[in-house]
Amino acid sequence: METHRRGETISQATAQAGANIAFVKYWGNRDDALRLPLTNSLSMTLDTAVTITTVMFEQGLAQDVLVLNEQVVGGEALTRVARHLDHLRQLAGVSWRARVISRNTFPTGAGIASSASAFAALTVAAAAALGLSLSPRELSVWARLGSGSAARSIFGGYVELHTAARHEDAWAHPIAPPEHWRLADLVAVISREHKSVGSTGGHRLATTSPLNVARLAHVHTALAQARSAILARDLEMLGDVLEQDALTMHAVMMTSQPSLLYWEPGTVAVMHAVRRWRQEGIPAYFTIDAGPNVHIITEPAHVTALQDRLRELPFVQDVIVCYTGAGARLLDVSTPTTPSPT
Amino acid sequence: METHRRGETISQATAQAGANIAFVKYWGNRDDALRLPLTNSLSMTLDTAVTITTVMFEQGLAQDVLVLNEQVVGGEALTRVARHLDHLRQLAGVSWRARVISRNTFPTGAGIASSASAFAALTVAAAAALGLSLSPRELSVWARLGSGSAARSIFGGYVELHTAARHEDAWAHPIAPPEHWRLADLVAVISREHKSVGSTGGHRLATTSPLNVARLAHVHTALAQARSAILARDLEMLGDVLEQDALTMHAVMMTSQPSLLYWEPGTVAVMHAVRRWRQEGIPAYFTIDAGPNVHIITEPAHVTALQDRLRELPFVQDVIVCYTGAGARLLDVSTPTTPSPT
Repeated sequence: METHRRGETISQATAQAGANIAFVKYWGNRDDALRLPLTNSLSMTLDTAVTITTVMFEQGLAQDVLVLNEQVVGGEALTRVARHLDHLRQLAGVSWRARVISRNTFPTGAGIASSASAFAALTVAAAAALGLSLSPRELSVWARLGSGSAARSIFGGYVELHTAARHEDAWAHPIAPPEHWRLADLVAVISREHKSVGSTGGHRLATTSPLNVARLAHVHTALAQARSAILARDLEMLGDVLEQDALTMHAVMMTSQPSLLYWEPGTVAVMHAVRRWRQEGIPAYFTIDAGPNVHIITEPAHVTALQDRLRELPFVQDVIVCYTGAGARLLDVSTPTTPSPT
Repeated sequence: METHRRGETISQATAQAGANIAFVKYWGNRDDALRLPLTNSLSMTLDTAVTITTVMFEQGLAQDVLVLNEQVVGGEALTRVARHLDHLRQLAGVSWRARVISRNTFPTGAGIASSASAFAALTVAAAAALGLSLSPRELSVWARLGSGSAARSIFGGYVELHTAARHEDAWAHPIAPPEHWRLADLVAVISREHKSVGSTGGHRLATTSPLNVARLAHVHTALAQARSAILARDLEMLGDVLEQDALTMHAVMMTSQPSLLYWEPGTVAVMHAVRRWRQEGIPAYFTIDAGPNVHIITEPAHVTALQDRLRELPFVQDVIVCYTGAGARLLDVSTPTTPSPT
């Protein structure tokens, strides 16, 4: 295959970025092409759920190549990566094609969105390989173009993504670093099945819900409360906000036209269990992304007990534990023209 | 027990009323004491889910007595019935106490709200026994004071309850009689457990949800669409409206403070099943009241197939089938002082 023929490596870089879990989520864009969200959003970057991506610009490569978790990938995934590289190539004024080798340290389809860590790592690696000198804020702007939530994964700890009317003004910024407050995110895996409507398609439906305007109006309050709760390290306050926010987002999803019901029986079982355990004194709160799996946010001291309890629930296939993590970082870069090291 | 001693019966009447299933529901009151709902609501009266109530005003009875499904009942249920009788006694200018003997033809806790049929039957029977000559509209006004949805059960077929600023202006009226369109309501019973927060308590929480205002704004559209769909006998249009309306109501419940999550794993399983079957060509739509059980609205031709499929689902304990039914009616009345027939 022509796309597998190795050429001379012009330059290459490797970066890693953590996934993140949003406490105040965004659903719906004001501009789908530019991925300018309808609202701000706020998340915690995760430590062990990481994407590591090497971008190798090669002489003579006819088109971009994507190798994801050891598999050559084409189709929509490749198109999205190539389009993302196009933006950065344009910025650098080059037309080199790249071999992108990416792997996740977490299983696919397990309820941890890989697009955030993937596009954050891709942006950092590609920018470095292209010799672009971008600030973290600029990196978050470009990462956003690949995946809205990737803008947040540029930073570690607690991060807010600001929406804006223009591409260059919609960036993320850190609210507090990971050392400020160590929290855990336990992902109760209910189903590994591919969701029938992905986030990109779902975002387009947000405005068809009669509840969307109310959610938009309320997000300001939720964000302010979440920021205060994080700065004060107040898990009860943060938990109330993140649980209600997840429910309002799913309310918008369920009442859009067509209706998106991401929950499965096990989703509801875990929601009830978390509330039951909370009544027993365990500070645990749930949030749910565009899928059936449930994220349980708690303090590190309660991880073992919660993990045991979650594994005993009939619908839970697996539990993945992550903690507050650092931002995206460059692991390696070599910009002069050298032979490919592999 | 003094309350069981039989006195002379002054007058008595027996009435029956059907339960109803709301296609556009109300959640929240503008006045809790008067049960003046925040919005109009629209329902179908059910045929086989019926309450039959005899009200016997007896000489020398020290307080009202309630016998519900062969059991003498006190507490909150008796207080609510006694308070309801007080309104009608005041209207009639008497102070007689009553023995109220009531039974439902449908199981308690099976997802068919008994308060609508109970207070409709009680109102019709008590008014007749008290010699009050009330129009159906007036009966619906008084029934509403006992239970908001009881106002609708005064009428058969398709019924809308109008909210208003004053007690006497909030009445139900029929949109179409039962003969207009025969639909079926299959109740998939998921759980018979008593819900932890009943409707009366839940209504008070509606305004604490950030989504409530959006639901209030949208209900006008939903009602208009439901009315049109009923008049045109358009199940697809009606189904879209009733499914979305149930979801918006549960969205308000889930995002209220405290959050009310009435759904169980089986609720979600049935919701997904109904949508799957619809994709296979069976016109079936779900709605859910303040509990975990799911009502499936369909045409009579599809009842057998749906019943079989529902019974095969792992979470479904029972399926109850009802059709469009008639309004409340008086079965028997004897106003002169005669000995109790029992």
